[in-house]
Amino acid sequence: MASAGTDGPPVDALRAALPEGAVLTDPASTEAYRHDWTRLPDAGFPLAVVRASSADHVRTAVGWAAAHRVPVVPRGAGTSLAGGATAIDGCLVLSTERMTGIEVDPATRTAVVGPGALTSAVKDAAAPHGLWYPPDPGSFRISTIGGNVATNAGGICCVKYGVTTDYVLGMDVVLADGRLVTLGGRTVKDVAGLPLLKLFVGSEGTLGVITRVVLRLVPLPAPAGTLVAYFDCTRDAARAVVAMGARARPSMLELLDAAAVGAVEDFRPMGLDRDAGALLVAQSDAPGTARSEEIAVMAECCEQAGARSVIATDDPVEGDLFLEARRAAGPAISARGSVLAEDICVPVDRLPAAMERIEAIAREHGTEIPLVAHAGDGNLHPAIVWPPGDEEGRRRAEESFAAILQVALDCGGTITGEHGVGRTKRSALPDQLGDDVMELGRRVRGALDPLGILNPGVLW
Amino acid sequence: MASAGTDGPPVDALRAALPEGAVLTDPASTEAYRHDWTRLPDAGFPLAVVRASSADHVRTAVGWAAAHRVPVVPRGAGTSLAGGATAIDGCLVLSTERMTGIEVDPATRTAVVGPGALTSAVKDAAAPHGLWYPPDPGSFRISTIGGNVATNAGGICCVKYGVTTDYVLGMDVVLADGRLVTLGGRTVKDVAGLPLLKLFVGSEGTLGVITRVVLRLVPLPAPAGTLVAYFDCTRDAARAVVAMGARARPSMLELLDAAAVGAVEDFRPMGLDRDAGALLVAQSDAPGTARSEEIAVMAECCEQAGARSVIATDDPVEGDLFLEARRAAGPAISARGSVLAEDICVPVDRLPAAMERIEAIAREHGTEIPLVAHAGDGNLHPAIVWPPGDEEGRRRAEESFAAILQVALDCGGTITGEHGVGRTKRSALPDQLGDDVMELGRRVRGALDPLGILNPGVLW
Repeated sequence: MASAGTDGPPVDALRAALPEGAVLTDPASTEAYRHDWTRLPDAGFPLAVVRASSADHVRTAVGWAAAHRVPVVPRGAGTSLAGGATAIDGCLVLSTERMTGIEVDPATRTAVVGPGALTSAVKDAAAPHGLWYPPDPGSFRISTIGGNVATNAGGICCVKYGVTTDYVLGMDVVLADGRLVTLGGRTVKDVAGLPLLKLFVGSEGTLGVITRVVLRLVPLPAPAGTLVAYFDCTRDAARAVVAMGARARPSMLELLDAAAVGAVEDFRPMGLDRDAGALLVAQSDAPGTARSEEIAVMAECCEQAGARSVIATDDPVEGDLFLEARRAAGPAISARGSVLAEDICVPVDRLPAAMERIEAIAREHGTEIPLVAHAGDGNLHPAIVWPPGDEEGRRRAEESFAAILQVALDCGGTITGEHGVGRTKRSALPDQLGDDVMELGRRVRGALDPLGILNPGVLW
Repeated sequence: MASAGTDGPPVDALRAALPEGAVLTDPASTEAYRHDWTRLPDAGFPLAVVRASSADHVRTAVGWAAAHRVPVVPRGAGTSLAGGATAIDGCLVLSTERMTGIEVDPATRTAVVGPGALTSAVKDAAAPHGLWYPPDPGSFRISTIGGNVATNAGGICCVKYGVTTDYVLGMDVVLADGRLVTLGGRTVKDVAGLPLLKLFVGSEGTLGVITRVVLRLVPLPAPAGTLVAYFDCTRDAARAVVAMGARARPSMLELLDAAAVGAVEDFRPMGLDRDAGALLVAQSDAPGTARSEEIAVMAECCEQAGARSVIATDDPVEGDLFLEARRAAGPAISARGSVLAEDICVPVDRLPAAMERIEAIAREHGTEIPLVAHAGDGNLHPAIVWPPGDEEGRRRAEESFAAILQVALDCGGTITGEHGVGRTKRSALPDQLGDDVMELGRRVRGALDPLGILNPGVLW
């Protein structure tokens, strides 16, 4: 056991301060907390794992870590695709997976949620009240609110309903010195003092450990109508997306290129058209007659952009099938081999150019790069695939990864739209932000965590 | 002239570094830059006023101020209701009123805007493209985007469309040392690095001077239908608001109490019912048939809460009349005497209780407190009125002001929903935030402006 008979940090003292079973140190138990979904080969070995059940446990753990200069890696469900919850050697992994409480208050349309609650559980708790929590990252059935808030998670809904930060009204957060502060509350408008609440949303565990979140809910939207359009090439599909943006407010506007459609069909045959160059799946949840009108406008945009076929349906079951095809793309692509998941975002008018450049990168590097996109946001998820164990394939994948980040920067976009910088993109961050903004961020981080114990190695 | 023959900061050097007419020092010219709309009696006398026409001018001015330890008071149109743009003795007032450029890009639904552009000018520039910039503070025809961003301004639209921060995609900002940094950009999703962009929205000129903003635009909504309901008392009206929140998404949900209705009728007779205890003005901009359905739901909520009359209209001209009645409340109340404008926000379910307490405060202190509210947000604007020059009246007004802030805190709300802390609420801020959050804010401010030259005396 890491804590036995060494001169290292006194894990026994931490164990004594927390309930039975809250502190894990044996390698068989801590192994499950070393990696996140990024599966970084250089994930470290934690000194201990704390499974907190309350904010007090988090305070105790962070206070102990601060006293003994032990780095803290906060962790929800470990679904990071950027290495944001990957352990480092000698760290304390601080898991909030047990803090799963959800209280919905229909009168104020808010939910008070523990950081370990699953995103889907919040949606499920809101629904009986006719309420809805919109953010829906691909992982929403298995990722936690704490992780969603820490990364400012997005998803499919963002094109109409925005991202996680738009729904965070308040939080409790344990700072690097173990103090707990409450930021914001249940009010929907609050400009008292610096907007510190917003500073924590998307800070990737580097400024504090979230122990409670107050989320804004909205009335459930009307059932969506669905539009499906096939195009000869991604460029035409992208042009349709740009045209829709100015004329409609789709509640979903997703794109799959031919390789992604093929991956889905290989994984789970659904009768998608493998011969097309791109597939758009769009929805409108406008209420009443406006839904079919909005679908008609979107269909017109597709036709004018040269769609080879356009299908509209008001049948929710049929619509859900296409949505499932989109959601199946992630697992379908993962099933093809080792994957580097990209997450760039470009101004929407640069979509056609960005997708052409990514196709060129796939050709030039001889890599398979199926692409799915939250196209309405300009948020592209090219997934670079290579055969597991093929070192040459991995090398070419990494070259492609870097080249795609450069595409984002050349288009005036961002190296990460929703996954976060984590550990995998830290070397690219200065290229986007520049020296002055990097320094500005360091100053803020240094002011909040002068010892640098919170998620070191993440962001920079 | 303040700069002539003294040992003070070398204003002549500043004048030489900027174009002819950019630097004002004679008291006749600078007088117009001492006050904002708060008309604080202790407004100071600036050393100089810089009217910047470009980001370079702002850099020059802030760099000069930093070198000579001169406090900087950034200023847009000076419409602050919290003393946020009030001069202090020996300061440099840095006005961005001349930086009025607006470029709308329909393809990405964004506008690149100078900080001195009027909010209404951005709306006007977007409209020909079928696009809309939602935020609409009461001052939107005369306040600037720079000021709106610095205060995270709200308005009537917020109940459905959110506040200014929800529409800020990027900005250029000159830091306290004169460096210019670019945060964010034209992408709608961007999680690269700490969310510094959001930290500046609502920072009230204490972290930097904004020189350019990239705003998100949305498609123009459908024309609104309007609902007007009179109630016997504010409590019934507030109950209707709470009921609507869970069943509808009104695009406007405003409340006037009897005193506010009376003030409007005195100021500009519009045939409003002076005998009612409260007036609700609500709108739905749901598209197509959903509009009348939503209006019907809202009407039902009013009737169930005991409305004495409910009128619905789909005629935009008639609807605009009621909207103008709401918008006239500000000038109508100002015309009654000296005014302390309040701006508290409470969780929506606390609206009935908060309004009852405010009515009791008016009785107890013998003050006239007409109340208008962005009721759908729980954002209340009680306006405390007293006869100009009546010192006893002012004293009672100030007591009422403090008592109303306490109502906000007792309800778990905020001392400012949209006007900002400025100078008028700084003494109340610690009561809301507590020592730890105050200290956290000071650490962030100190990290960004170690010399403390940006808007000192604002926030704390």
